[in-house]
Amino acid sequence: MATRLSNLFLRTLREDPVDAEVASHKLLVRAGYIRRAAPGIYTWLPLGLKVLSKVENIVREEMNAIGAQEVHFPALLPREPYETTNRWDEYGDNLFRLKDRKGTDMLLAPTHEEMFTLLVKDLYSSYKDLPVTLYQIQTKYRDEARPRAGLLRGREFVMKDSYSFDIDDAGLEEAYLAHRAAYQRIFERLGLDIVIVQAQSGAMGGSRSEEFLHPTAIGEDTFVRSAGGYAANVEAVTTVVPDPVDASNTPVAQVFETPDSPTIETLVDQSNKLYPREGRDWAAADTLKNVIVAVIDPAGERHMVAIGLPGDRAVDMARVEVNIGALLGIGGEVEVEAATEEDLKNFPQLVKGYIGPGLTLDAPLLGKESTTGIPYFLDPRVVDGSDWITGANEHGKHVYYLVAGRDFTADGVVEACEVREGDMAPDGSGPLEAARGIEMGHIFQLGSKYAEALGLKVLDNNGKLQTVTMGSYGVGVTRALAAIAEGNHDEKGLIWPRHLAPADVHVVITGKGEEIFSYGDELVAELEAAGLEVMVDDRPKASPGVKFGDAELLGVPTIVVIGRGYKDGVLELKDRRSGEARNIQVATAVDEVIAEVRG
Amino acid sequence: MATRLSNLFLRTLREDPVDAEVASHKLLVRAGYIRRAAPGIYTWLPLGLKVLSKVENIVREEMNAIGAQEVHFPALLPREPYETTNRWDEYGDNLFRLKDRKGTDMLLAPTHEEMFTLLVKDLYSSYKDLPVTLYQIQTKYRDEARPRAGLLRGREFVMKDSYSFDIDDAGLEEAYLAHRAAYQRIFERLGLDIVIVQAQSGAMGGSRSEEFLHPTAIGEDTFVRSAGGYAANVEAVTTVVPDPVDASNTPVAQVFETPDSPTIETLVDQSNKLYPREGRDWAAADTLKNVIVAVIDPAGERHMVAIGLPGDRAVDMARVEVNIGALLGIGGEVEVEAATEEDLKNFPQLVKGYIGPGLTLDAPLLGKESTTGIPYFLDPRVVDGSDWITGANEHGKHVYYLVAGRDFTADGVVEACEVREGDMAPDGSGPLEAARGIEMGHIFQLGSKYAEALGLKVLDNNGKLQTVTMGSYGVGVTRALAAIAEGNHDEKGLIWPRHLAPADVHVVITGKGEEIFSYGDELVAELEAAGLEVMVDDRPKASPGVKFGDAELLGVPTIVVIGRGYKDGVLELKDRRSGEARNIQVATAVDEVIAEVRG
Repeated sequence: MATRLSNLFLRTLREDPVDAEVASHKLLVRAGYIRRAAPGIYTWLPLGLKVLSKVENIVREEMNAIGAQEVHFPALLPREPYETTNRWDEYGDNLFRLKDRKGTDMLLAPTHEEMFTLLVKDLYSSYKDLPVTLYQIQTKYRDEARPRAGLLRGREFVMKDSYSFDIDDAGLEEAYLAHRAAYQRIFERLGLDIVIVQAQSGAMGGSRSEEFLHPTAIGEDTFVRSAGGYAANVEAVTTVVPDPVDASNTPVAQVFETPDSPTIETLVDQSNKLYPREGRDWAAADTLKNVIVAVIDPAGERHMVAIGLPGDRAVDMARVEVNIGALLGIGGEVEVEAATEEDLKNFPQLVKGYIGPGLTLDAPLLGKESTTGIPYFLDPRVVDGSDWITGANEHGKHVYYLVAGRDFTADGVVEACEVREGDMAPDGSGPLEAARGIEMGHIFQLGSKYAEALGLKVLDNNGKLQTVTMGSYGVGVTRALAAIAEGNHDEKGLIWPRHLAPADVHVVITGKGEEIFSYGDELVAELEAAGLEVMVDDRPKASPGVKFGDAELLGVPTIVVIGRGYKDGVLELKDRRSGEARNIQVATAVDEVIAEVRG
Repeated sequence: MATRLSNLFLRTLREDPVDAEVASHKLLVRAGYIRRAAPGIYTWLPLGLKVLSKVENIVREEMNAIGAQEVHFPALLPREPYETTNRWDEYGDNLFRLKDRKGTDMLLAPTHEEMFTLLVKDLYSSYKDLPVTLYQIQTKYRDEARPRAGLLRGREFVMKDSYSFDIDDAGLEEAYLAHRAAYQRIFERLGLDIVIVQAQSGAMGGSRSEEFLHPTAIGEDTFVRSAGGYAANVEAVTTVVPDPVDASNTPVAQVFETPDSPTIETLVDQSNKLYPREGRDWAAADTLKNVIVAVIDPAGERHMVAIGLPGDRAVDMARVEVNIGALLGIGGEVEVEAATEEDLKNFPQLVKGYIGPGLTLDAPLLGKESTTGIPYFLDPRVVDGSDWITGANEHGKHVYYLVAGRDFTADGVVEACEVREGDMAPDGSGPLEAARGIEMGHIFQLGSKYAEALGLKVLDNNGKLQTVTMGSYGVGVTRALAAIAEGNHDEKGLIWPRHLAPADVHVVITGKGEEIFSYGDELVAELEAAGLEVMVDDRPKASPGVKFGDAELLGVPTIVVIGRGYKDGVLELKDRRSGEARNIQVATAVDEVIAEVRG
């Protein structure tokens, strides 16, 4: 049945919605595909729902093709399973929590690892039942602090999430690679360029993990890649660690007066002025910066941590966040921010601007065993034997030639420095360049984390209970639709890829009089009879200008105009993307349009 | 792609789930169609999802056929619109409420009148935009006090809800009738017998309203019908009101001693013993029973109300509930229960067992203007001029010949009596009989209630703003699936109607050896090539008994057994519903099966 603009529930808008920053958000609202119901929560209007179901079907077909079986879980879930895995707390404010009439705690699921694990535990008991991969295409909830960019970061959204269950690592690897390949096909069919980057798994736990990022300037995720093919989230980049340095000829550490040198820049200036060295000037890279950060655990408690890194680099809090929790033995997602004055007032030994690890191994000021007790972690660049200018914990004083391993040690190593363009990729594939992207998919090897926590074990072929190993795999379905809109538009409106468009052809009737409308109906009927999905602008009173504008805004890839030329037996066939138009004869119009659509 | 039991995510159960009372619940769980996730909240397993999507598609097709347009609203909604219509409070404990991270009140929608109203208001502004009918098939939430019977009364469930928007009553009537006809087609296609009953609209407000009840002994709704075609919820039955009585010859009211007569039965006995009358004995129908009830408003406040009704009838609290709120000027759903001792202790004038409206018009004891101030409503049977024996508000005393209108009055009339089999249908179509059913669908003429509250007005053809008139229409989709299972099973398992079954044919391979399995694969491939949906039990190690049991439990309507006869070129073709089986030749098996399936 043709979509008729004369009765379609649609009102296109000339103005961008006030809260819209990105093109997909602006255009999907203006073209009447979606409508905001609450911050980060959208209603799907008829045209949006048509496109969404096409996107969903591509995802479904590719999941079925790898033998995944579709199920559907509730969105409203009991607290207990999430309590068992600690995610009830770990999710912090991102989780929508509620109580039912009996006061039972419940949640709106942001993801379903626990429930899938329990379901398989409930039904299966033997290695013979495995492997199995289950998926759902389902509405998810996440109480984002800053919902933004329309569908790109919403609070209620559709995801495909799947979960693999295997008896051993080889099985998990197979399921993981099957998903990896399926995701490549999905994004190819959706017309979305993808870079697969190594990722940290965040709150999900587990081992191998990759993200499918769609590179775009409006992406929230920064990633780096090398010409040699390396790609990773900045959070996942590992530093190319320099070789240890032989410090046998390094002078003993010595404290010098460095008045007014609370910053790296002033310190370098003072050093070159007061204590110039032969050969080359002191540089920021010769200094060791010690930054105190507050690590905020899921319960909101602040843990002080010191990080030592070369003075020419800044701390990347996001990189610290993904690693520091585990180093401190904190479960769940942590936040990291600079320590405040308030945080530091308990540590009078540490002098702001002149903080250092202490002058000798015997009298450390940073580290779990030090007098401050503040855990101290070094960036991997601070290798054993390297020597540094760093704070002497006295106002206006720094210590020179302080050697890592000889004069100070730390509690461990943490990836802390910002990653810079030009840094070397860890796999030796060359220098890194930075790019931005949207996370479209994510594949994880969860391993035994959830199965262990929830007791999912099966009998192996020796009759022994064995913990199942799992993978978890997600595709943002509504986000994918937005990314497609983002990458397929011009200043006039949307331009859908043909197989995702709400119709194959948009017939615009601009003339007046019964004859032209009745010819329009006839054309529509013939195109539909040939199996095409047809949208027709049969509004009796809208002006040609309005109709052309709407056709461009709505973004159906092929437009047929029945207008002034009709009386001479001529229609216009337009390609929305290229803007090219040509005349076709009424007599052969059906065949011409079909040929255009079928390519 | 055939559904293969060798890898289908399925575990059939021999035991009924402990919490299951009805067949559909037991069998859908045992056959691995659904699985409980929390009270009243279910997970859909692969087979369940297949059937559900077939049910959904029938609903979708019929809605599209009446020109309704599909949209999709969020389930998580802001409080404000529901606050405006007062439903935030009126829903009481049935509403799942929550707060987001900013403390904003939100809810999980049980129904979407407000949001649809606001959406149309947002996009449309002229009578020319109307009529429009929108629908969604969506997950709804209702925090039932007693979730029960599996999918029949759940807390998370799928509904089709639609809403019509018209400029005038004639348009609303047309939309209403279109839905009525569509619902008849839907339930016919689903194979569900339906009785359309007149209904009260409860919290929804509005005028004309009918329910689509599926008659079944396990139904929660009682309804009545007459041989002449009348059908209604007992809550909606209106009493055939007797003509007024001429009381000009009725004696004056007189108080008599009636010791030990606190009940109707004892009162009738005492009356006949102490004060026998000529002609016929006193009967319960001669007495006026005055019952004090507590009307509990949505805020939980208790309002005392007195109800006068013939002593041979009982009060039906449910019937009182649907009417009394409006009579008292209380918005929203009220609960009604018998007044407690506690409630009554403020009214010492009223003597338990001997309560009456007072002896004269000058000294009323019941009624807003009486000394008690308790509003007093009469059942419609208590017509003006009728005379009664009723309580004299003194222990052991009753008043005789108390005439309605002459000696006492009330604040109004309320449908209060239980409806009995044998009562006359209000439309004169004969005596009523009682039956039970499940509510499968509901159609309402909302009128201007929501449009008024939320300001949905459009310009009419005179350029004047006019409030839109609305209808609201629902079908319980997951409930329909359960009702279908309820009506299509035997002691061995489910028996799906052919067009709703998870497959057209269930091929059971019971023999051993590679040859028989490879023939099985061949048969499956040929049946699939002919367009059939095939399920095949290709489990290598399950016994024939297990396989036959599972085939009967799963309920695919046609079963083909490749078993012992195969070596002689014979298969068995079974009809699940009738249990009839016949042999077919391997050589012609494909055609025979296709003929069986296509009927």
